[in-house]
Amino acid sequence: MSAEAPQEEGAPFRVGLLGHGTVGAAFEELLAQRADEIARFNGRRPVIVGVLTRSRGSFEEILAESELLVELVGGLEPAREYLLRAIRAGRDVVTANKQLLSHHGEELFETAREHGVRLRFEAAVAGVVPVVRVLEESLSATPIERVHGIVNGTTNFILSEMASGSTYEQALAEAQRIGYAEADPSDDVSGRDAAAKMAIVARLAFGVPVHIDQVRYEGIEHLELDDLEYARELGLGLKLVGTAERRGDGISVRVYPTFLYGGHPLASISGPFNAVTVESGTITEITMSGPGAGGRQTASAVLGDVVSVMTGGARPPAAPLAMPLLEDVESAFYIHLDVADEPGVLAGVTRVLGEHDVSIKSVVQRGMDERARLVMVTHQVLESRLAAAMKKLAEFDFVRSAPRSIRVIEEEFM
Amino acid sequence: MSAEAPQEEGAPFRVGLLGHGTVGAAFEELLAQRADEIARFNGRRPVIVGVLTRSRGSFEEILAESELLVELVGGLEPAREYLLRAIRAGRDVVTANKQLLSHHGEELFETAREHGVRLRFEAAVAGVVPVVRVLEESLSATPIERVHGIVNGTTNFILSEMASGSTYEQALAEAQRIGYAEADPSDDVSGRDAAAKMAIVARLAFGVPVHIDQVRYEGIEHLELDDLEYARELGLGLKLVGTAERRGDGISVRVYPTFLYGGHPLASISGPFNAVTVESGTITEITMSGPGAGGRQTASAVLGDVVSVMTGGARPPAAPLAMPLLEDVESAFYIHLDVADEPGVLAGVTRVLGEHDVSIKSVVQRGMDERARLVMVTHQVLESRLAAAMKKLAEFDFVRSAPRSIRVIEEEFM
Repeated sequence: MSAEAPQEEGAPFRVGLLGHGTVGAAFEELLAQRADEIARFNGRRPVIVGVLTRSRGSFEEILAESELLVELVGGLEPAREYLLRAIRAGRDVVTANKQLLSHHGEELFETAREHGVRLRFEAAVAGVVPVVRVLEESLSATPIERVHGIVNGTTNFILSEMASGSTYEQALAEAQRIGYAEADPSDDVSGRDAAAKMAIVARLAFGVPVHIDQVRYEGIEHLELDDLEYARELGLGLKLVGTAERRGDGISVRVYPTFLYGGHPLASISGPFNAVTVESGTITEITMSGPGAGGRQTASAVLGDVVSVMTGGARPPAAPLAMPLLEDVESAFYIHLDVADEPGVLAGVTRVLGEHDVSIKSVVQRGMDERARLVMVTHQVLESRLAAAMKKLAEFDFVRSAPRSIRVIEEEFM
Repeated sequence: MSAEAPQEEGAPFRVGLLGHGTVGAAFEELLAQRADEIARFNGRRPVIVGVLTRSRGSFEEILAESELLVELVGGLEPAREYLLRAIRAGRDVVTANKQLLSHHGEELFETAREHGVRLRFEAAVAGVVPVVRVLEESLSATPIERVHGIVNGTTNFILSEMASGSTYEQALAEAQRIGYAEADPSDDVSGRDAAAKMAIVARLAFGVPVHIDQVRYEGIEHLELDDLEYARELGLGLKLVGTAERRGDGISVRVYPTFLYGGHPLASISGPFNAVTVESGTITEITMSGPGAGGRQTASAVLGDVVSVMTGGARPPAAPLAMPLLEDVESAFYIHLDVADEPGVLAGVTRVLGEHDVSIKSVVQRGMDERARLVMVTHQVLESRLAAAMKKLAEFDFVRSAPRSIRVIEEEFM
């Protein structure tokens, strides 16, 4: 709420728009379409008082005339500068900028808190899936224990194609052809886009500032098709899963290709979709899913944020909490070994695993001429122990190619 | 917001609790556990200033001391009387009472609107699944076209058991043994509980007052196990689906046992879960799912409502819109015919269907001694036309038992 531009019931609600690309244009159009309906519910009609693009508009003039600024410029600068200046001028702000929030979120939150300003960013996490809203509003009513999310539609599409037999290269080419993947897909397929979103989720779920560089992540570029096939025999499907969870007094934030059993709510999410599962002792778990962001969808999430500022349904950010970020957490693992088909192999493997506290839940062994594939799923084990065991296994003469491991989520809710 | 009891930043937020059964007790406990965290976010600490049970407490005293009243008494009276008095006294109110809202919702909404009071009821629809919140907040940013919901966990559990081969009677007995179904399950299995919830959903999604008696519904008591088996061959699974949708200038609100293709987001919801899919041109569709209500879960949804009143994130209800409720809408149908295995049967059946504008999408025919089962899925057809066709089919000598029909949802999103 701006000190210089107080709200009056019935007067137009003055919105300044920074950026006019795909999302910005869709937002302007949607706001015009929905203005009457918004006025019917909220008493005030939103209007765009100015648009800043590379070639036209003045930030100062738009700032002076607005009660709320919508930042759809993208990137780190000048988006950061614009938002900080708007917040310091007492303007509420809405952004869809996950990159900015995962790099400079705490500076923005802190400045917003100091100035009693609302900072909304639903579109920065999972597009139209209202994860920010639900996390924020659930947070005080129920203690969140864990959030698992499929927060990158591009990689989920690629993995769905691979589950149907495409190679990674074929699936990526198809994603690019349809427009789900960019010409340079590295931000998506490396897991970095999902890592940025999980940093934001962790701040919301646990109140702890997380920078993208503190998120451990791996992408999907190095997955082998036969891992998907073997895992299917064990009832497992592969997703790129982001996790933010409380473990004791610390939190862990990470993004990895992960196997899920069929009973997990994220297991049935196929194609270019996003989905987030929020777990807590009180609510058990809620899952929300929907299409990954397109221009109209993102614009709809941004407009929802504008409306929630208009209705007063948002507070300035709370002060951050301090909890250590854990580096080494427990997980179950899928292990793939390409071994010689000779006596003593299984005994050697299980001995090494046992020495590292890795206990086996299920095994599939299959001979292929003189070689065999040994596929196992472990019980929970510290990542560092699993890594040490994998290193040791690689030293065996009978192990013919580098052992591979992929995380497994064991929970099944349905 | 109460005129007599103004809010002061930092002062305790005074909550009166009406009703102290399972949910009431869980709410009291949860509020005490979460009060510090709520205060950290909202500046004020919620406290319960009085509890009304059958044997203790005075409504007048609790009303006088509260800023907000939580109604967990249940049933129509005296819950209605309490809520109206609280609203007229300027108190914000939170209720989990779907029965009351589906019978007297409009009286409550209208009174709340006149007095500028917030009326919250997240727990009345799908327990912890935040459907009320998302519908309310999405409503002004995006025009909702359709809501499909699995809003009764008991029937979803029973149908999941039947999908695994149990009869209806076995599945119901199992649900009662575990505590998912009550000794008298009629409100659940008749579809009436789901109908009450869909009446509330329709008011939220379209702004149109809907009384439970205006919702068309059927239960799951008369389903035959072989329908589930045949439908599986067609790729269909059975759910009790509530639908509220805009069709032209009218709306349709209904609850029926319904077949879904595997690609529909509700198809994978098994066991005692609730799930709601919201469709709109802008957002495509969002699905939210979670456990059907238990005491702790319901209490968590109620506390979420209290917090959203505290944060100002709720408005008094908007004035209702007028749109006709449609009686006869189009749907696709599954048809099951038990026929004599003789020449001319299929010709006779398809002629009758054709005369009633029923066009066939897929057929499965299977002989069994002298009889045959003819299972078909139709394209979209007006319900009245399908009903007329079914009546005509029953007149054929070669039709050996009453023809059966079940609605089919054709959309597949994933």
